[in-house]
Amino acid sequence: MKKYLLSPGPTPVPEDILLTIAEPMIHHRTPAFKAMVGQAIEGLKYIFQTKNDILIFSASGTGAMEGAISNVLNKGEKAIIVRNGKFAERWGEIAEKFGIDPIYIDLPWGTVVEPEIIEKLLKDKSDIKAVYTQLTETSTGVVLPVKELGDIISKTDALLVIDAISGLGGQEFYMDDWKVDICVAGSQKGLMLPPGHAYAAVSEKAWAKIETCTQSNYYFDWKSYRKKLAKNTDPYTGSVIHVKGLLKAIDIIKAEGIEERFVRYRVLAKACRSAVAALGLELYANPPCDVVTAVIVPENVDGLALVKKMRDEYGFTIAGGQAEAKGKIFRIAHMGYIECFDIVAAISALEMVLHELGWKFEWGAGLSAAQKVLAEEYKF
Amino acid sequence: MKKYLLSPGPTPVPEDILLTIAEPMIHHRTPAFKAMVGQAIEGLKYIFQTKNDILIFSASGTGAMEGAISNVLNKGEKAIIVRNGKFAERWGEIAEKFGIDPIYIDLPWGTVVEPEIIEKLLKDKSDIKAVYTQLTETSTGVVLPVKELGDIISKTDALLVIDAISGLGGQEFYMDDWKVDICVAGSQKGLMLPPGHAYAAVSEKAWAKIETCTQSNYYFDWKSYRKKLAKNTDPYTGSVIHVKGLLKAIDIIKAEGIEERFVRYRVLAKACRSAVAALGLELYANPPCDVVTAVIVPENVDGLALVKKMRDEYGFTIAGGQAEAKGKIFRIAHMGYIECFDIVAAISALEMVLHELGWKFEWGAGLSAAQKVLAEEYKF
Repeated sequence: MKKYLLSPGPTPVPEDILLTIAEPMIHHRTPAFKAMVGQAIEGLKYIFQTKNDILIFSASGTGAMEGAISNVLNKGEKAIIVRNGKFAERWGEIAEKFGIDPIYIDLPWGTVVEPEIIEKLLKDKSDIKAVYTQLTETSTGVVLPVKELGDIISKTDALLVIDAISGLGGQEFYMDDWKVDICVAGSQKGLMLPPGHAYAAVSEKAWAKIETCTQSNYYFDWKSYRKKLAKNTDPYTGSVIHVKGLLKAIDIIKAEGIEERFVRYRVLAKACRSAVAALGLELYANPPCDVVTAVIVPENVDGLALVKKMRDEYGFTIAGGQAEAKGKIFRIAHMGYIECFDIVAAISALEMVLHELGWKFEWGAGLSAAQKVLAEEYKF
Repeated sequence: MKKYLLSPGPTPVPEDILLTIAEPMIHHRTPAFKAMVGQAIEGLKYIFQTKNDILIFSASGTGAMEGAISNVLNKGEKAIIVRNGKFAERWGEIAEKFGIDPIYIDLPWGTVVEPEIIEKLLKDKSDIKAVYTQLTETSTGVVLPVKELGDIISKTDALLVIDAISGLGGQEFYMDDWKVDICVAGSQKGLMLPPGHAYAAVSEKAWAKIETCTQSNYYFDWKSYRKKLAKNTDPYTGSVIHVKGLLKAIDIIKAEGIEERFVRYRVLAKACRSAVAALGLELYANPPCDVVTAVIVPENVDGLALVKKMRDEYGFTIAGGQAEAKGKIFRIAHMGYIECFDIVAAISALEMVLHELGWKFEWGAGLSAAQKVLAEEYKF
């Protein structure tokens, strides 16, 4: 059975990248490899839309999230953490491990924070050192108002730290224009690579705070990465295959253009949302992002069976809900190397599975709705 | 020009593993992938020769080294650190970052510690919590007396922590029989994989100490890995391609047999050492290990030029010296997917380069010496 991977990470890896990864191993302390690291950093600057320093880690995205706390905040320092999903909660878990004094803004999953709430908190407490949130929250499918947050936070001494792990390269994002101080990302989402590589972009305002931080860091000591990456090398043995794959991914992204990608994923998201609405289903996320569509499983439909049938009987790996959303939602990704006809195929399979599970709708209703959007707006 | 990679990490990746890595991406939260993680853990137990828990990290080996300190020792606790090379020094750097009170045994590079020194230290100071050293020190090519250390340390409350990053899978090692408490390893040496995966094997005696540790850990929180890996899963998104490659590597290692591999690398090391002796060169390491041969660059020969010529003019990536050994030694690896005729080829190129650099010897002297050992002792 032909397999389709439409999960919000890992995402499918383009064949060209897979072949690059399968090339004979090379040594990492050579002029040839250093040149590759230099190109990778320049390419990432384009994708992050920043002139800031870029750090590259052999780790999953969580490693970069940890570093964005452990290199920045000292024990007892205050930070605002927006908690509106599983990965938002991870910011809190890391902060607590490192003895930070978190000021939580707890929100229902599937919603986002009002920027005014943060504005007021920052006015009331001048000792808040940073605000941690997401560009897109993978577990719920929302997009956060990062631009608005940047406008507010840049006027204070606090830092704006964004987890763009699932958003980067798909969801509209301009690190410098939006005044983001630290942005972390991972390889296995919009960047179309296998899991195992993580990135951080770090502003001068953030470096100034990092210089005052006294937490214990070694593997994720950002100062040591900064020093080495300025010479296009790595403090430890870097992941050679991820760097090589990243260069191919950068080529693909540059050839299309980052803004053109933002538009294309917006159209994919619109098509996907139109399809599920036409099937009588409701969205979980408000406002929904452009890289993953989270859909509420209707009453009387078994949400776990839906995801399992999609995978085992039709070949489509989509995602269910995580933690408190388990069984209650399903998520179809449209990030990375997921394009127009992958979404058409996924909606087709979704109709078949929904029918099997007893949900009533007209055959092809989801497909027709998606088709209308894609035919009119998708740019090949 | 045909390329030969004989560096002590990364090492060449077998073609079968490269092709596995290039297979289409799969999702990590699926029964199929969990089964793979379970198999990988069982296979690693065979390679470590242990019944202990095995943890798998998306990181380079240094990440596992950090965890072997940050999960084990509290600030102010004492640990013996043997410092006889670059990676030995890394144990010290990490310990200092985490506020450990290190008792250094500083030795000239290229030598190893006398077990009696450690025995005496442990008798004198009953509050020493652990001893950190290497199986093989990659930067100098020595092999440490791990079995003897295990006999001594297992009689105390202290833990024996071994960095086997360059040794595992090549240098003779029996974790349980040798009474090692924690052993860390990396993917890109004897395990024949690309860099980016690290492992730790952890004894019950070590877990008991880990339970008392209060350092800040999140990405490398071993307790959280233990809990997840017992269910064949990972706290974060694991490196799917490394796990898949690891299964192939385990197949290759099991098919040959771990003890047969120990013997084979011993013969490769002997051949390599015989060759350099026949060329009038001296070894740097005492005692030398079986996975890398470190050779002193003779006076009047330019050590940096030797390594550069090997790579740029003949296609052989070997390693020079690191830090204080820079320019003074060169290192030829015989670990992982480096076999009989790779060593023959490397000695041939080495003769050509030594001749170019003005060193006097009889053509083929190195090759003949290697050939004699390989013909008589190498088992295909």
